[in-house]
This record gives sequence, structure tokens and C-alpha cells, in this order.
Amino acid sequence: MTTTYPTPKAIAAPSLPLIRQVVPVQFTYDVHFTTGLFELNNPLLAQVIAADGEVGPKRMIVVVDSGVLQCHDKLLEQVAAYANYHHDILTLSTDAIAVPGGEIAKNQPEWVDQLHQVINTAGICRHSYVMAIGGGALLDMVGYAAATAHRGVRLIRVPTTVLSQDDSAVGVKNGINAFGKKNFLGTFAPPYAVLNDFSFLTTLDDRDWRSGMAEAVKVALIKDAEFYRLIETHAHALANRDMAAMQQLIYRCAQLHLDHIAYNGDPFEMGSARPLDFGHWAAHKLEHLTGYNLRHGEAVAIGIALDSTYAYLSGLLSQSEWQRILKTLQMLGFTLYVKELGDYLDQPRHPQSIFKGLTEFQEHLGGELSVTLLSEIGKGVEVHQVNLSLYQQAILIMQEMFESVN
Amino acid sequence: MTTTYPTPKAIAAPSLPLIRQVVPVQFTYDVHFTTGLFELNNPLLAQVIAADGEVGPKRMIVVVDSGVLQCHDKLLEQVAAYANYHHDILTLSTDAIAVPGGEIAKNQPEWVDQLHQVINTAGICRHSYVMAIGGGALLDMVGYAAATAHRGVRLIRVPTTVLSQDDSAVGVKNGINAFGKKNFLGTFAPPYAVLNDFSFLTTLDDRDWRSGMAEAVKVALIKDAEFYRLIETHAHALANRDMAAMQQLIYRCAQLHLDHIAYNGDPFEMGSARPLDFGHWAAHKLEHLTGYNLRHGEAVAIGIALDSTYAYLSGLLSQSEWQRILKTLQMLGFTLYVKELGDYLDQPRHPQSIFKGLTEFQEHLGGELSVTLLSEIGKGVEVHQVNLSLYQQAILIMQEMFESVN
Repeated sequence: MTTTYPTPKAIAAPSLPLIRQVVPVQFTYDVHFTTGLFELNNPLLAQVIAADGEVGPKRMIVVVDSGVLQCHDKLLEQVAAYANYHHDILTLSTDAIAVPGGEIAKNQPEWVDQLHQVINTAGICRHSYVMAIGGGALLDMVGYAAATAHRGVRLIRVPTTVLSQDDSAVGVKNGINAFGKKNFLGTFAPPYAVLNDFSFLTTLDDRDWRSGMAEAVKVALIKDAEFYRLIETHAHALANRDMAAMQQLIYRCAQLHLDHIAYNGDPFEMGSARPLDFGHWAAHKLEHLTGYNLRHGEAVAIGIALDSTYAYLSGLLSQSEWQRILKTLQMLGFTLYVKELGDYLDQPRHPQSIFKGLTEFQEHLGGELSVTLLSEIGKGVEVHQVNLSLYQQAILIMQEMFESVN
Repeated sequence: MTTTYPTPKAIAAPSLPLIRQVVPVQFTYDVHFTTGLFELNNPLLAQVIAADGEVGPKRMIVVVDSGVLQCHDKLLEQVAAYANYHHDILTLSTDAIAVPGGEIAKNQPEWVDQLHQVINTAGICRHSYVMAIGGGALLDMVGYAAATAHRGVRLIRVPTTVLSQDDSAVGVKNGINAFGKKNFLGTFAPPYAVLNDFSFLTTLDDRDWRSGMAEAVKVALIKDAEFYRLIETHAHALANRDMAAMQQLIYRCAQLHLDHIAYNGDPFEMGSARPLDFGHWAAHKLEHLTGYNLRHGEAVAIGIALDSTYAYLSGLLSQSEWQRILKTLQMLGFTLYVKELGDYLDQPRHPQSIFKGLTEFQEHLGGELSVTLLSEIGKGVEVHQVNLSLYQQAILIMQEMFESVN
């Protein structure tokens, strides 16, 4: 062995031109809307699997949110009966795996390890299926496990909450938390299919029913004034669990979300802008600061209120539109102030200051700071600098308006 | 909470059409060829980073194969001096991390965890860089860690072996081993750039110099008869470490590999065919059966010889071309028989039978069995069924021809 590092002169001068590699990849998946997905007379799931055109039956494992099982105690029997009924199309390779839902699923990397083991022992290959039934956090965790086994096995998402049906489960991301940071680990990996079953919504508790609407308000505010007016008009019905109104909200929100991913030119987020993250820098931090006592959508509602107030104070947004936004969020039943928003207001670098969320947000996305604000209802704008004292003022205004409401 | 699962009749009949989501993603990266990458007067690395057009300096962490450091004991100083010289463009966020190279890097998931920790503490974001310097196994492991942190931070691969420069490091995959299976965990994740520095080849031991040529023989056999003749003609020079011949081999092999990924229509391998895996079903199994005493390229050479012999026996390939293939592999210095190839020949389902590799290969790819054979030099063909007794015969022929040679 030699220990000298050869100088360029030691060997032939390089005369080989660079090779520029361009890899086009196209992902296609369908988002379906149904009720009673596992009723024997509902052909959807069987059709989705048979549509792969390959020789069946295909192997499948099922991972289910244990919170869902509490409300639907016959669910696993139904899934087994469905698989049995369609035994020429699909085979359950093992018993279903129940995993606690909510953020806890994303805070315990052991679940990912365990799913990898099950995928291995059940002989799940890149043409087999993992079906995940649950809320967004569970789907994120299972999606990460599925995306990294065999470099990606097929994932069928069955979201069971408003939030996951209208937002997280229709997208191309997965992830778990690490080092106290949300989604520190994850990949971009489109699902094989998304099956939105409205039946699951009937058993949601009020907080879960409500919190998913925050993402609909968000996407309406940055992209679609007409959709915003629809939500505003039906806010009372939505708060009172009107299913028809909710189905329309979920459908339009999912559609806007999907359109954004497909047409914004950066589905895998290689740039720095992320307009869909309106209200999210504060929301992510608030979730963490409250020990995840706030649900994601509840935190997003506060984040929307904060960034709308800041947009108003900085002269971007009119006073009347700012007030319409706060009113709609309140009519939907959202709490718009929590103590953690105001803690360490004068110490923006304190780990427990909301403003630390700005730095963490920038670091997660990478590149320059890019925060989405509003210039009017239906129109998001990107800014790359923020004025912390205006943000402090916005928080004080929110405290005055909403602290006593809680 | 209710425990009845609502029937479809309980709520409004679904009347919402499915949404078909089509997500086009385009990845672009450059593969460069140079010598003396870290010489201060070599602008390549600085240019590659400055070309991102973002405000610098950009953060970078360096992960290096400890085997490379043994031969290049000034390497880390050089990298540090280079970063210092270009401090307006890049900043090393921590000391370089040395990791054992070879398959051991892929067999210890702790390395991935550790790199995630370093990426976190060093504040590496999606616009920062992880530079990995080493052989293919190390690059695979670092690539997996980089692809899963923040859903993918920028990876610059600096492959240091023939095998990684001409094959693995120019592609879109990463991975580590789990459950005794090669690449059980991994993702598809194109690198940010690949910097092939020929200087590193001068210190390779003879086995590493040689083994990487197996992938060039492979891709020539299935795609490019002219390239095959070039290798055949220069086999003696290549075996005797002629650098000019090696540079041409690496360049053309990398080019064919890149073209295949870009133009075959399935860069992320959603189908079942994987023509570049000619000779690989047996190679993967042999690596495992020999406890990774065989290097990947050495195993691939045996796999090529086996599948060529089988192609000849099954009437696909002419006798003269079969013999030319074996002769070239021998001239390049490859050993074409190991004991593990013939173990449990009559027990194809035995875990230590080479034939178990066929099942594992199918499972990893998913879908139907798809094995690439040759109809002539330069032309691969896919088959979906194999005749085990012909394969047994092929192994016995190889045993007779090559066992005594070792």
C-alpha cells in the first residue's frame, strides 16, 4: 500500500466530458371516495388490486390504527371476510398489526423496525401490498416503513380522519419524528392508491372531526377564494357534523392538494418554497411545545390565525379579510390561542420560543427562509424575511382577542 | 364511542368521482470524471457546489471509507484545505466521519443511525451536502442515510473503486442489508452529483481493480457488442492495470448504465424486469453464501459465466460466443468457480443452495420471475422460467472447467 495521494500529473490528463443524467419518473395513483370500503358488496378494493393486471392472488399485510379499532371493533373481521371473499385477488399474509395512532406512532422508531420484520417474514415484495388504515400519523409511519423495504413496496392508504382524507394521505410524503423534530426521517414516495372511506368519519370525536378542516381553510386561503366562501357559508353545518358538507370539503381540499403537487413543478420539494405550508412554521413548533397535546389541525388553525394577523399588520392583507378569517376559524370551533404561543416572546432564540420554529422550518426545507402569507383571501404570497417585532405584536393581539375565550 | 361499523346506507351514497393523480418528477445530475479532485488547483468540486446558484457558503459533512484513508493518509487534510481554500463556497460542519468500507458498512444499521445524528447536529438541511468518499457499499449506506434525513439531503458521491465508478455510484439507488438479505432496506434517490476521481484507482489492490470490470463485461454483453470487443481486445492491458484502458472502460460502462436508467422507461423499477441484473441472481446469493468473502464483482463474474453457460446449454447462445465470454473473464483474471456454487445442487430449496437465490431475486424485485440471458454478445433477453436441471448441468460444467484452476 502506498500512502501518497497521486497528483493529477501522475496519470493521464482527464479528457472525458461530463455526462449529464436526466431521469424522468412518472408516478400515477388514484384517490377514491367511498363508504363501507370493507362491505362485501363494495368492489373498490378488489378492483384496485386486480387493476395491476398481474397474476393473483396478491399478498397483503394490514396495519391498523388501534384507535380506529376501538370504534370499529368488527373491522379486522370485516377485512378478513373481505379478503376471503376475494381470495382469487388478495391474500392476507399475516394477522393485522395494530399500532397506536396519533403522534406516538411517529415517535417510536421501533414500529418501523417491526414493520420491516413483518414485511420480511410475510414475503411482501415490490408487487405486494401494505394497507394502512388510520389517521395521518399512522399512515406517515407505515408509509416510511413501506417506502424503505425493498426500496418501496406498494402502499394502499385508507385514511380514517378528516385531516388525512383531505390532506396528508393524498400526498407523496411519509415520515417519522427523530431528535425531537417532526418528520426528520422520511422519504418522498407516492402511494399505490388512496381509498377515502367516509364511514370512518362518523365515529371521530369532535376534535378529530374539526381539526382536519384547518387544512381545508388553509388551502382555500392560499389558492381558492370560492372554496373559502363555501367553507365560510357552511361553517355552522360543518361544526355541527353535517356529513354532506364535510364530503364536499374533503373532496375539494384533496383535489386542490393533489393539483398543487402535480402542477407546482416541484413535487419532491427540491426548491425552498413550500406554499402549502401556510401557517405551518408555527403549527409544527406549537405541536412540539405542547407535547403534542394540540392536534396537528388545531395547531394549524392557530398558525393560520397568526400568519393572517401578521399579514394584516404588515399591510399585505385587508382588515376585513383578516377578520373574516378569524371568524370562520372560530365558527368552525377552533381555539385560537394557547399559552405556548406567548412564552418567551422576548427571547426568539430560546428553544421554547415560538420563533425558534422559524429557524427549524427553514432548516427542514433548506435554503433561504420562505414563509407563505396572504395578500387576499385565495392568494398566497411568499416572503423571505419576517419582522419579529410585528410577529410579537400579532401574538399579543391574538392573546388579547382569544386568551379569555379558552 | 360507537362500536358499530356504519353500513353504506347510513350516510349519503358516494357520488364523488375518483381523482387520478399523475406526478411527473425529473431528476438531473452530472457525472464528472477527473483526477486529483481535492488538489487546490482542481476547481471541479467548488464549481459543482457553486452551480446550485444559492447564497453560500453551503454546509457539508464528509463521510469517508476508512480503507481509502489507509491508502491516502493525507486525504482528510486535503479535503479540509480544499474547503478552507473555497471557504466562500463550502464549510465543513464537522470533522469527517470514517466508516469501514465494504459490505460491513451495509450490515450495521448503527451507521445509518449515527449519520442521521450527525446530519441533525451539524444542521445539514435539504440544501446542504453530504459528501461520501469510498467504495460502492459505503456509498450505498451513506446514500440511504442521506435520502431519509429531511426526506433527502444532497448527496455528492465520490466513488473510489472501479466498481462504484463504472456502475453502482452513477445510479439512482442506495441501500443496506437486513435480515440476511442484500439491500432489503433502501430507496430510489438520485445523487446531487457524482465525481469520479481516477486518482483513487492507483492504490486499489488487484482484487478491487479487477472486480469492477465484471459490471462492464455485463453491460457490454447485454447492450453493446462493440464495447465488448473493446474489453476483449484490451483484456490483457486491463488485467495489467493500464490506466488509459481502464478510464475508457469506466466511462463507457457508466454511460451505458446511465442511458439505461434514463431511457428504459422504468428508472425506479416499478415493473418486474431488470435487465441490468444479468448474472446477478447467482451473484447476490454467492456473496451471501461466501460470507462476503467474494467481492460483488467477483461474484458477478461467476454469475455471468453461469448464466452464459446456461444460455448456451438452452440453445440461446452459440458455443463460440459462450467460449469467448469465458475466455475474456479468465483473461481479466476472474476466478470462475467457488465451492458454494455447487453445494446443495440437488436441493434447490435448501437455504444454502445457489438456487434459493432465484426465489430471493424474484421476491426482491417482485412480480413474476425475470432473468436476463443472452441470445448473442451484445443482446440480452428476458426469460420468465428456468430449467433447474439445465442449470445444474451448467454448474457441473463450470466445476469441471474451473475448479482445478483455483
